[in-house]
Amino acid sequence: MSHHHPSVDVIVVGAGMAGLVCAERLRGRGREVLLLEARDQVGGRTAGIEVDGETVDLGGQFIGPGQDRIYALAAELGVPVFPTYTAGANVLETETGRLRRFRGMVPRLGPLALLDVARAQSRLDRLARTVDAEAPWRGQDAADGQTLQSWIDRTLRTSGGRRFLVLACRAIWACEPSELSLLHALFYVKSAGSLAAVTDFEGGAQQDRLEGGAYGVATRLAERLGASIRLNAPVQRIEQNDSGVVVTAKDGTSWRARHVVVAVPPPLAARIAFHPPLPAARDDLPMGSVIKYVTGYPAPFWRQAGLSGSALCMRGPIAMTVDSSPRSGRRGVLIAFVNGAPARDLAARSPEDRRGILLDALGHLFGPQAATPASFVERNWNKEAFTRGAYSALFPPGAWTRLGAAWRAPAGRIHWAGSETSPRWYGYIDGAVRSGEAAADAVAARLS
Amino acid sequence: MSHHHPSVDVIVVGAGMAGLVCAERLRGRGREVLLLEARDQVGGRTAGIEVDGETVDLGGQFIGPGQDRIYALAAELGVPVFPTYTAGANVLETETGRLRRFRGMVPRLGPLALLDVARAQSRLDRLARTVDAEAPWRGQDAADGQTLQSWIDRTLRTSGGRRFLVLACRAIWACEPSELSLLHALFYVKSAGSLAAVTDFEGGAQQDRLEGGAYGVATRLAERLGASIRLNAPVQRIEQNDSGVVVTAKDGTSWRARHVVVAVPPPLAARIAFHPPLPAARDDLPMGSVIKYVTGYPAPFWRQAGLSGSALCMRGPIAMTVDSSPRSGRRGVLIAFVNGAPARDLAARSPEDRRGILLDALGHLFGPQAATPASFVERNWNKEAFTRGAYSALFPPGAWTRLGAAWRAPAGRIHWAGSETSPRWYGYIDGAVRSGEAAADAVAARLS
Repeated sequence: MSHHHPSVDVIVVGAGMAGLVCAERLRGRGREVLLLEARDQVGGRTAGIEVDGETVDLGGQFIGPGQDRIYALAAELGVPVFPTYTAGANVLETETGRLRRFRGMVPRLGPLALLDVARAQSRLDRLARTVDAEAPWRGQDAADGQTLQSWIDRTLRTSGGRRFLVLACRAIWACEPSELSLLHALFYVKSAGSLAAVTDFEGGAQQDRLEGGAYGVATRLAERLGASIRLNAPVQRIEQNDSGVVVTAKDGTSWRARHVVVAVPPPLAARIAFHPPLPAARDDLPMGSVIKYVTGYPAPFWRQAGLSGSALCMRGPIAMTVDSSPRSGRRGVLIAFVNGAPARDLAARSPEDRRGILLDALGHLFGPQAATPASFVERNWNKEAFTRGAYSALFPPGAWTRLGAAWRAPAGRIHWAGSETSPRWYGYIDGAVRSGEAAADAVAARLS
Repeated sequence: MSHHHPSVDVIVVGAGMAGLVCAERLRGRGREVLLLEARDQVGGRTAGIEVDGETVDLGGQFIGPGQDRIYALAAELGVPVFPTYTAGANVLETETGRLRRFRGMVPRLGPLALLDVARAQSRLDRLARTVDAEAPWRGQDAADGQTLQSWIDRTLRTSGGRRFLVLACRAIWACEPSELSLLHALFYVKSAGSLAAVTDFEGGAQQDRLEGGAYGVATRLAERLGASIRLNAPVQRIEQNDSGVVVTAKDGTSWRARHVVVAVPPPLAARIAFHPPLPAARDDLPMGSVIKYVTGYPAPFWRQAGLSGSALCMRGPIAMTVDSSPRSGRRGVLIAFVNGAPARDLAARSPEDRRGILLDALGHLFGPQAATPASFVERNWNKEAFTRGAYSALFPPGAWTRLGAAWRAPAGRIHWAGSETSPRWYGYIDGAVRSGEAAADAVAARLS
C-alpha cells in the first residue's frame, strides 16, 4: 500500500504563499524539493478565479507599506502593483440602517463615541508596544488572561464606541471580541507596526493591490517550481527519525526527505499524525469566520455617485465592503466581508437566502444597481476542508502562554511556516512570504 | 481497497463509557449495533491497568451523590461501590513548601483569604444558578465574553484567595483560569449542582469508588457486547446520504448503518472527515492538561500518621493527591494530579526527571516512604492520540455562544454522545453514561 519514492532534501507541505516561497527559495539554492498540496490548485488562502476575463481574488489581496517581502517578490516576478481605489466618500451604515458618508478611516459616530474610540485606539497602540513580537507570551500574563471583550468593556465608556470596536474586531480578525485574547490583538497590532497600519488604506495594509490578483503571484511561483509540486496530495502522517522524515499522503503514497516544512494553517497542522508525537501540543487553535462575496458589474457605477465603494456596516450581516475593480476600471467589482458571528448565522441559511440577503444589503448601501450584479461569487472559508477558516488563526486567552516558544520552534526535522508563524505581519500575505523565507533559510543551514 | 460489510442499524464510534452504554442499550432493544474503537482496549478515559494484582484506574474513578446513572449501571453490572478513604487530616502545601494539616475542603489560608474564598464560592454558585444547563449560551453573553481569570481578578480581594482559586481551577478543570470561559465554569458547576458537589469528597463527586475500578465497569459492558465491538478501528471518515451512513476506518475498511453515534472526545470528533460537511463547525475545543501518577506501596502508611492521603499543593507541580488504595487496604495507593500549566512544563522534562520530581514532591508531602514506591505509573492524557487530554474539553470564551445548539443536535443521521454532550454532570463518568443513554434513546426513536 505504501509506495516509497527516492529521497529529496526537503518536503514542503502546503502550496500556499508560505510553502511556495519556501520551496522556490530552497530550489534556488540547488536543493531538491518536493511541494505537496492537498487541493488541485496552489495558492492556499490567496485563491482566485476567472470572472469575465479578469482574475478575482477570493482570499488575501491587499498589500501595504512595510510589507517589504511581498513587494520584493512581486517585483521579482514582474507582477505590477497599483493603488486600491479610495477616491470619494465612504459609507457608514448605522445599526438602524441609516447611511452616513465619511472620509478617512473613522466614521461620524457622534463626538463622545469618537473621542472614546480615539482614546481606545491610542491605548491599544501603547499596550501593543509592550509586546515582544518574537516572544509574545513573555511578561504578558495579564493580557493573555483576558479577552478583547473584557478590555473593551473596561476601557470604552460609550455604547457607540463599544459597538464600533466590535465591528472593528470583526473587520480585522473575523471574530467576536470574546473569542480573542487581548494579548493576541496586541501582538497582531505590534506585528503590523500600529493599529493604523492594520486599518488604513493609504499608508496601511490595504494601500495596494497586485495586478492579476495575489493568486497570480502564487501561480507564477508554481510555474517556476513545475514538476516539484504534487497536487491532490493531502498529507496525513509525518514520521521522523535520526536520519530523515517519511511523509505519507491520504492515498498511502510516501515520500522521504531529510527535512520537512509544514506550511499549512494551524488547524490542518494539528490534524497531521506525527510520529513520534510532537514534544508540545500545537493543537486546537480556531480560525476566524469569513464569507467573502465578490460581485461584478459592467462598470464601477458608485464612483460616479462620489462613493469609494468602501462601507462599514454596524447593522450587519456585512462588516465591510471595498472596491475591488480591475486597475483598468473597465468593469466594476465590489468585495463584501461577512465576518464573525454574522458569518456563522448566514452560513446556516440556504444558498438562495444568502444571495438574497447579500444583494439586499449591497442595494441598500450602493443603490439598486448593486443588487443586480452581472456575476456573484461566494467563498465561505470555513467550509474549505483544506483551510478551515480565515483570515488567520485566533489565539484565545491562555493560548500564547500555553504554546510559547513551541509555536515556532522546529521539532527535530519538522519546521513550521505559514503566516501564523511570522513575528512580522502575522495573518498577512507578507507574513506568509517572510515565514517561507525564514523556514527555507533555517532548513538550508541545517542541510549544509 | 474499501471493503463493505453488511449494514447494521447503528454504528457507535468510540468505546469509552458513553459509547459502551449507548451500544449496549441499543443492543438490549434488539438493534443490530457495531461499536468501533480506535485503541486495542475499551474504556476511553476510564482506563485501567493491573499493578500487583489490583486494577488501578489511570483515568476517571470517582462517583458521588446525584450521579444516579453510574450508580444504577454499577448495580446492574454487580460492581460494588465503596467510600473514598477520607479519615485523618488533609495536607496543604503552601507556595513556600510549608505543610499545614486541615480537615474538610478548605485549608487554613489565613482569615482574610478564607473569607475571600468563601465569598467567591457563594458568588460562583449564585451565578451558576442563572445558567440553563440545557442551553448554556442563552442570555450569557457577558459570562461568555470573559475568562475565569478576569472574574477572579475582579472578584477576589486577597492575593492568597486568588492563588487558591488558581489551584482550584487546576484541580477541577485541569487548566489555567485564563483558558476557560467564565460561562463554562458556571455551566460546569450548574451541571453538577453546586460548587460543593464538584469539590467535596463526602456528599460530593469524589465520595465513592468502584470496586475493581471504573475500568471494570467498561470491561463488563464490553463483555456483554462481545463480537459487536471492533478494536483497532480508528474512524477517519463518515459519509451520510438520505438512506444511511458509511463509516470508514484508517485502513480503508467501511461499514454501513442507518445511523451513527459519535462518542469520542471533541478534538477527535473534529478530526473525522464528514461528507457532506457538517452544517456548523464542531471544531477546535482544547482539552484540559493532566498527568496522573499512581504510586503503589506495601501499605497505606500515611493512615497510621493520621493523614488522609489528600493534599492540595500551592507550590506545584502536583495540584492534589488522593488515597486510592484498594478497599481492602492490603496495599497503599496514592494518586497525584499534575494539571494545567505545570503539566505542560513537566511533560517537557525527561522521564527520569519527571519521576524524580514526582517522588521528591510525594516525599515532601508524606515522608520518605512515599518517595520509594513499589510501583510507579504515569499517564499523560495529552499524549494519548485517541483522547488528547483530560478530564474534559474546555470551552474558551465565545465557544459556547459560537457553537450553541449545534453542539448537541444531531446532524442528519449523525448523533453525538460523550460526557461533553451531557447537560448533567458534564465531564464526569455519570455524564458519559447519561449521554450514551440519551443518544441510544434518540436513535431508537428515529429507527422505529
